[in-house]
Amino acid sequence: MPPRGVIKDVIITPVAFHDMPLLNSVGVHEPFALRSIIEIVTDDTYGLGESYGDSTHLGRLQLAADKLKGLTVYDTNAIYKICLDSLAGDTTTGGDGMAGMVTTASVTDKVFSPFEVACLDIQGKLAGIPVSELLGGRVRDNVQYSAYLFYKWGGHPGQPDDEYGAALDPAGVVKQARKIIDEYGFKAIKLKGGVFPPAEEVAAVKALHAAFPGYPLRLDPNAAWTPETSIWVAKELKGIVEYLEDPAPEIEGMAAVAKEASMPLATNMAVVAFSHLPPSIQQNAVQVVLSDHHFWGGLRKSQTLGAICATWGMGLSMHSNSHLGISLAAMTHLASATVNLDYACDTHWPWKPRDEDVIADGALKWVDGGLNVPTAPGLGVELDREKLARLHQQYLDCGLRKRDDTTYMRKFQPDFSPIIPKW
Amino acid sequence: MPPRGVIKDVIITPVAFHDMPLLNSVGVHEPFALRSIIEIVTDDTYGLGESYGDSTHLGRLQLAADKLKGLTVYDTNAIYKICLDSLAGDTTTGGDGMAGMVTTASVTDKVFSPFEVACLDIQGKLAGIPVSELLGGRVRDNVQYSAYLFYKWGGHPGQPDDEYGAALDPAGVVKQARKIIDEYGFKAIKLKGGVFPPAEEVAAVKALHAAFPGYPLRLDPNAAWTPETSIWVAKELKGIVEYLEDPAPEIEGMAAVAKEASMPLATNMAVVAFSHLPPSIQQNAVQVVLSDHHFWGGLRKSQTLGAICATWGMGLSMHSNSHLGISLAAMTHLASATVNLDYACDTHWPWKPRDEDVIADGALKWVDGGLNVPTAPGLGVELDREKLARLHQQYLDCGLRKRDDTTYMRKFQPDFSPIIPKW
Repeated sequence: MPPRGVIKDVIITPVAFHDMPLLNSVGVHEPFALRSIIEIVTDDTYGLGESYGDSTHLGRLQLAADKLKGLTVYDTNAIYKICLDSLAGDTTTGGDGMAGMVTTASVTDKVFSPFEVACLDIQGKLAGIPVSELLGGRVRDNVQYSAYLFYKWGGHPGQPDDEYGAALDPAGVVKQARKIIDEYGFKAIKLKGGVFPPAEEVAAVKALHAAFPGYPLRLDPNAAWTPETSIWVAKELKGIVEYLEDPAPEIEGMAAVAKEASMPLATNMAVVAFSHLPPSIQQNAVQVVLSDHHFWGGLRKSQTLGAICATWGMGLSMHSNSHLGISLAAMTHLASATVNLDYACDTHWPWKPRDEDVIADGALKWVDGGLNVPTAPGLGVELDREKLARLHQQYLDCGLRKRDDTTYMRKFQPDFSPIIPKW
Repeated sequence: MPPRGVIKDVIITPVAFHDMPLLNSVGVHEPFALRSIIEIVTDDTYGLGESYGDSTHLGRLQLAADKLKGLTVYDTNAIYKICLDSLAGDTTTGGDGMAGMVTTASVTDKVFSPFEVACLDIQGKLAGIPVSELLGGRVRDNVQYSAYLFYKWGGHPGQPDDEYGAALDPAGVVKQARKIIDEYGFKAIKLKGGVFPPAEEVAAVKALHAAFPGYPLRLDPNAAWTPETSIWVAKELKGIVEYLEDPAPEIEGMAAVAKEASMPLATNMAVVAFSHLPPSIQQNAVQVVLSDHHFWGGLRKSQTLGAICATWGMGLSMHSNSHLGISLAAMTHLASATVNLDYACDTHWPWKPRDEDVIADGALKWVDGGLNVPTAPGLGVELDREKLARLHQQYLDCGLRKRDDTTYMRKFQPDFSPIIPKW
């Protein structure tokens, strides 16, 4: 019997989709978000992965992709080694796709991730089962996501307001939450902070608490605060937030805050690779890890992270940055099969234009603040090649080749500093 | 499309095979070793697992087995939960299958393990790929095992000598090593100690070192020594053993030895469940964990253990107790797909009569001290129902219902004490 699932081709397509002017501690989202779409092709079928679209990352993906032909989609150990080896001579920099906010993740894990997801997509298709079943089976049929709020401008400078309009104070944040929750039904709320002085953001969270009583709340300033400021915020928000996310920079900063904070601290900045877990655990720096299969090395390694969290009594949540439907499907399968996922996952989904994606319509169904787990074989999403071509053309036309929130911000606020901590 | 791999039946068959009078710190192996053979049956095919054969364990397996029908073989999360829930009211004791030497492993993980292996066997068969591919793909085609030496009597009392004869001093141990290595080609040697005063066992290891220069050596007294004695042995065997296995009892004892020992300490007694990892790592009690899918909750959880070892810089080896061919196949698939398996695995295989097993001949091939990884779909071993019936009859006839090395030893040495540490 010839081996099944032999990789015949790997196609990487950069795409761009419209993004809104969402503010964070290092700047503001540019008019387009970049992603890479990875297709692995076998004799029988094909599989999909999605990752960052920065040119540096695209170059690294291509280096590995060129060496995958002839392996099977089951040989993820060999694929990982190829990613590792192909990066040995890599001298490019950046490529984190996250505006400099997550810079210490494992480059190998980031490069490997979309290939692994595509392989699992094919493994599922060949076995006739959804990816969630490859991962141990769904423990929930609907994966809950949080309403991910952002301070934002009304529209990109020089353009009309977008459908969300401005959110620059507590009232604007509450209005935004109302709109998003009305549409999606989210039952947990996260506010991206680090934009305004801490007292203003504390006031916004308190306004959300008053407007949405009983909703689990989170505030994430992306390490914009010193430990001292973080401790002040923690006191202000005691009993109000379910966790405080990345208040201060680095494991040491988080550890200092954790000693004083009444609520768990969560992170997707201080602990973003397996090598960070031992020092973080030793110092009890964080109590919740936000997993992200895009930088933790794919779905199975994210499951390992989940098992580590369970073993050391840490909570588990899920991070997001701007993404399309392939990533959302992968995140949802992973979350559905992760027993100890203790919190609603984050997603940037509401900030993406409804008509911009690369997948065929109908596979992803939002119900009651969550996504129903696709039950078709594999990821359960199929490429719409017309849509892919359109978003690729948008990539070619938009001129952006990496994510750079800071430079874009400085166009309008020349003295803007991304240096953290700020307060 | 109807779901694939729906479980129609689960059949648990206790079996017994002849064992030799192998000595250890708690007694001597009885004339028969007990195992349970687990068959999971689906519409299309069946899958195999193997576990302990103690009556307590059999009862626990049956409790869970009765509730698995209707689930699919992909729903391992649901199967785990059934094992957990079915044990909630369990008041039976014992059932560890390891003569009281591994008593703090997770009962749920032990019960879940053979079901998980059988499910993976079926998953592999349905996908047309070996279990090693389900686990990420082979990184080695031949899994190396160690020559696992035992002090032993010439034969069971009242019976003629077995083919190995006695090994009660350094010369006997070297002779035994020669015979086993001649037959299998093993390139690493482990001596089960804890039987004679430490100086005698040190002498035996030194004799092995002289007779087999360059062979990695290990000594495992099953926690028969105090930390002080262990430190003395560690000094004696500096530069001679690759690791010292379970010299002293408990995490605290191992930690005390580790502070002074020049070689890594390995364990399959102090750290035998995920809950033991945090305190052990905090104290740097052990530097090598001997995984064992039979008590670490199956193959995927053993992979998680491997990832934890890699993350915290611990070595990974593999433990064995008396087993048949299904276990050997599962161990081999797991080892073949585990990148950071740093040592030759342990196996009791040479101590089993060549003609006693439950699998069809020909699937397992020993080459150069290792087993070639089966490449047929699933585990690559098939049940021989005649052989199974014979070993089940042997179970019925032998009268043993649990492993009890101590009581058997006391038949011949009434004052024998299994209390450790002894020296």
